[in-house]
Amino acid sequence: MSATNMQVLLANRPVGWVKESDFRIVETPVPTPGDGQVLVKNLYLSLDPYMRGRMNDARSYAAKVELGDVMTGETVGEIVKSNHPKFAVGDTVVGRVGWQRYALSDGKDLRKVDPKAVPISTYLGVVGMPGVTAYIGLLDIGQPKPGETVVVSAASGAVGSVVGQLAKMKGCRAVGIAGGKAKCDFVVKELGFDACVDHRAGDLGKALAEATPKGIDVYFENVGGPILDHVLLRCNPFARIPLCGMVSQYNATDDRYGVKNLMMGVAMRIKLQGFIVSDHLDRWPEALAQLAQWVREGKIKYRETVTEGLENAPRAFIGLLKGENFGKQLVKLA
Amino acid sequence: MSATNMQVLLANRPVGWVKESDFRIVETPVPTPGDGQVLVKNLYLSLDPYMRGRMNDARSYAAKVELGDVMTGETVGEIVKSNHPKFAVGDTVVGRVGWQRYALSDGKDLRKVDPKAVPISTYLGVVGMPGVTAYIGLLDIGQPKPGETVVVSAASGAVGSVVGQLAKMKGCRAVGIAGGKAKCDFVVKELGFDACVDHRAGDLGKALAEATPKGIDVYFENVGGPILDHVLLRCNPFARIPLCGMVSQYNATDDRYGVKNLMMGVAMRIKLQGFIVSDHLDRWPEALAQLAQWVREGKIKYRETVTEGLENAPRAFIGLLKGENFGKQLVKLA
Repeated sequence: MSATNMQVLLANRPVGWVKESDFRIVETPVPTPGDGQVLVKNLYLSLDPYMRGRMNDARSYAAKVELGDVMTGETVGEIVKSNHPKFAVGDTVVGRVGWQRYALSDGKDLRKVDPKAVPISTYLGVVGMPGVTAYIGLLDIGQPKPGETVVVSAASGAVGSVVGQLAKMKGCRAVGIAGGKAKCDFVVKELGFDACVDHRAGDLGKALAEATPKGIDVYFENVGGPILDHVLLRCNPFARIPLCGMVSQYNATDDRYGVKNLMMGVAMRIKLQGFIVSDHLDRWPEALAQLAQWVREGKIKYRETVTEGLENAPRAFIGLLKGENFGKQLVKLA
Repeated sequence: MSATNMQVLLANRPVGWVKESDFRIVETPVPTPGDGQVLVKNLYLSLDPYMRGRMNDARSYAAKVELGDVMTGETVGEIVKSNHPKFAVGDTVVGRVGWQRYALSDGKDLRKVDPKAVPISTYLGVVGMPGVTAYIGLLDIGQPKPGETVVVSAASGAVGSVVGQLAKMKGCRAVGIAGGKAKCDFVVKELGFDACVDHRAGDLGKALAEATPKGIDVYFENVGGPILDHVLLRCNPFARIPLCGMVSQYNATDDRYGVKNLMMGVAMRIKLQGFIVSDHLDRWPEALAQLAQWVREGKIKYRETVTEGLENAPRAFIGLLKGENFGKQLVKLA
């Protein structure tokens, strides 16, 4: 075991785009668990767009990270010391223990997982929070019906890639929106979407119209910005728009995009509904079991971008916010 | 009976603001009902914001008015000739028979009403489509709970005035938004809202914050534009926003307002849902019976602006779109 812990702290609240200097990397002694505590050695850290919101001093659904605190984040790791009756040394666990190599936990925020069932990194992606987000957002809020058209933005990402594959399983036409030809090719050729629109390639409205000849019944919103305006013009009556995230707007300050076509929401009786996956804990066991099964059976495919070393997490996170990753963004810690 | 009919036709599709020259007023012979038809003499014509949409050549939930056709609209009138077994001369009826003094109907679009139960003009307002719109939009989509805060824009209008009074009946704090001191005074002093924000008086965000100290749980959207952005910043978790109309945007062309705070929809898990009252015909009998009872009992109050003469309907309609009316806008035809 390495003699020191490494932690990534929030150093500054970013204004606009996050900078590496908004983080501070420190080395500290590896802590010792007290009564009822465990020591987790983190193997992978998950980087997710929602973390941008935790860096702000703003009202939201979850507590912000305080200046000087360890950045919040989920990891998959291994119990290396345990004073807790429910966890043994060697157990593999998923938990929200932050951007650090070693973490103490009282076990409340840890979930034991089976390292032999699926690759452990997937517990942070397709068989973890992002996969469950796709599952609940699409199935419970989007409620797709066979024959309908489902569109998802950030389609090659951790959430979007699962949304489209679930839509196909439900008998829908799945259309992705992604940035660049490589991502679009992946979405169609490897994930099996029916079409993918490259939002960097020019006339988004025209391309979206061609990809959705029967209009749009469900739009799973991950990015915000002008895409939503184009989608609203293509929505069929009673379309559903689960609002999962708006990553394109997280770093905006005075230049936030203004959505102009909400009037279509009246004419087409559209439902736009924001959701947070942690509000639906009762749905997690079903979703996780299903997703793990589909991954094992090869029915759901995924891609990962793995950055080596915790010290590179800030740069990887900034890249994620800019769409530089491809699939689920992870940091390998050990 | 006057020897000629008067009709208001759609002469041009407006670009931006409607002009009187977009209508053409014609005098034609009073038609004679054929087999299974009735002749209705219209007494009042209802003017409603949705009619602006019917003037466009655009995809919407209902057919547009064709150039040269009689403008679409609801009236309350009297059967003056009948070849239909279900209607007798002297019956009072409500129907969508258009902007004209006399109309033929096969009866399918007519509903008999009791002229003694409530003033007949209210069948076009509080005990008609606008009242049912408020009833369904607030109760079914907004689902207000006692103690919650309900905000409604166009609060002195035909729909908004009912929304706030229903919210009070449900034990909510009712906050209106209206243009000008006279309307705000009416909303608070006569209709019994808890507060009303004058959107013409200056700092809307500050005034709205003061009027909603516990945040906003339901926002009944009638107007669109910047008000929604202010509301989104005040929404409590799981707020509901029935989207009924966006009258401020109906005449916009390139200057449509862009809504910038939809990101709050994710953080606060807000549901925005467009609806059209005619999708919910199963709910009309209950709503109409309840509203009529509350009007008779004085529990729901209303105000009307009555313009005399069909020839003045275009001007009154343009005034309605600009918010010049006060309460339900009607045209008295006879």
